[in-house]
Amino acid sequence: MSNEKKPAVALLSGGLDSATTAAIALSEGYQVHGLTIDYGQRHRFELQSAKRVAEALSLASHRVLRIDLAALGGSALTADIDVPQDRTEAEMSDSIPVTYVPARNTVMLSLALAQAEVLGAADLFIGVNAVDYSGYPDCRGEFITAFENTANLATKAGVEGTLKFRVHTPLIDLTKAQIISQGTALGVDYALTHTCYSPNSAGVSCGRCDACQLRYQGFQTAGLIDPIAYQTQPTA
Amino acid sequence: MSNEKKPAVALLSGGLDSATTAAIALSEGYQVHGLTIDYGQRHRFELQSAKRVAEALSLASHRVLRIDLAALGGSALTADIDVPQDRTEAEMSDSIPVTYVPARNTVMLSLALAQAEVLGAADLFIGVNAVDYSGYPDCRGEFITAFENTANLATKAGVEGTLKFRVHTPLIDLTKAQIISQGTALGVDYALTHTCYSPNSAGVSCGRCDACQLRYQGFQTAGLIDPIAYQTQPTA
Repeated sequence: MSNEKKPAVALLSGGLDSATTAAIALSEGYQVHGLTIDYGQRHRFELQSAKRVAEALSLASHRVLRIDLAALGGSALTADIDVPQDRTEAEMSDSIPVTYVPARNTVMLSLALAQAEVLGAADLFIGVNAVDYSGYPDCRGEFITAFENTANLATKAGVEGTLKFRVHTPLIDLTKAQIISQGTALGVDYALTHTCYSPNSAGVSCGRCDACQLRYQGFQTAGLIDPIAYQTQPTA
Repeated sequence: MSNEKKPAVALLSGGLDSATTAAIALSEGYQVHGLTIDYGQRHRFELQSAKRVAEALSLASHRVLRIDLAALGGSALTADIDVPQDRTEAEMSDSIPVTYVPARNTVMLSLALAQAEVLGAADLFIGVNAVDYSGYPDCRGEFITAFENTANLATKAGVEGTLKFRVHTPLIDLTKAQIISQGTALGVDYALTHTCYSPNSAGVSCGRCDACQLRYQGFQTAGLIDPIAYQTQPTA
């Protein structure tokens, strides 16, 4: 009886982490509503992947909200700044990367909160991860806790006490390999997901950006085959 | 020397409160960048007013970011729900109004934060007011404080300590009459601002919605003339 399930909103980027997060939300018995924020990212293939993942997981609904964060400038993911290639893990974790999008998770969680309040959903799911990408400040637990607190003060439902908002981050302490293992156990089809920051015009992943390398190494460590093709095979 | 001034981002709706807030930011010596969020509001005249106000105040820049909050549903300001008319002040303050937009100020402040981080601005200005419109949970000081805390945990600039974000709410404890008096002293041209929730097709204010009544009463109490026309003259 799907109408007896508790509704939840899951942010869905089209990437591996958010697909796994949505699958975990489903496995926990939520009625999952996917929300994809089209923020003007250069890798438009993510949006197609988000739609395919939402369909494959049979989500209760899926919305794509467009917002032109690129107009604000400031990130290699939305502006014309070169995406780094062939970096070692030490280089990746050295500082906050140029692919950082200013206030991205704050903006995304705010929109998920708006959608959740309209749907009467107290539960938000986001696939942030503090292990592989520790450079992003808005992927840490203390940020999530601060946002949860803000959400409960910001909303009619929170203030009136009809909903107690909670932000679920099931991946936050997992390695990429653990994420992939868990998603595979839940039946996530990673062939549908898109990870690369610099795909070619046909959408084929470069194999050299940080995201491709972390993805590929995650599959290797998990002892699983990465089902997507790469222009240049990443090094494990 | 405007290039020696500290940059700030001021949310500008086209309404009376945000115009006054931007004028206050200017009077405090900031280089003010206006940010207007076009969230699919039904009263599109606000957006034209925001542009006119930004020009009249000679802001350093003015951006309009479009985001379709209406697609999320849930408010009389974006959806097809009747806007209440002819309510007394007691009725207005009775509960959170149907004109409440879910998580609106959280979404707007998130976008202002993104813009601020790109500009290297630590200071955000928002014209929230806890007196006249106490029904909106995201117009209260405790929400603002929670958001400030989130902002400093969410951002590269906040975490690296290059910017300490602060959300300024110069109107929060002022009555509408005090806001109008202060803005008038700073030279704000309130003829450029738009307040009505239900204007006619020519943009003329109805005079009967909560917003029109609070505006008109504010001018009356301040002993000033409201320079805009109304379809039905509000009662003082």
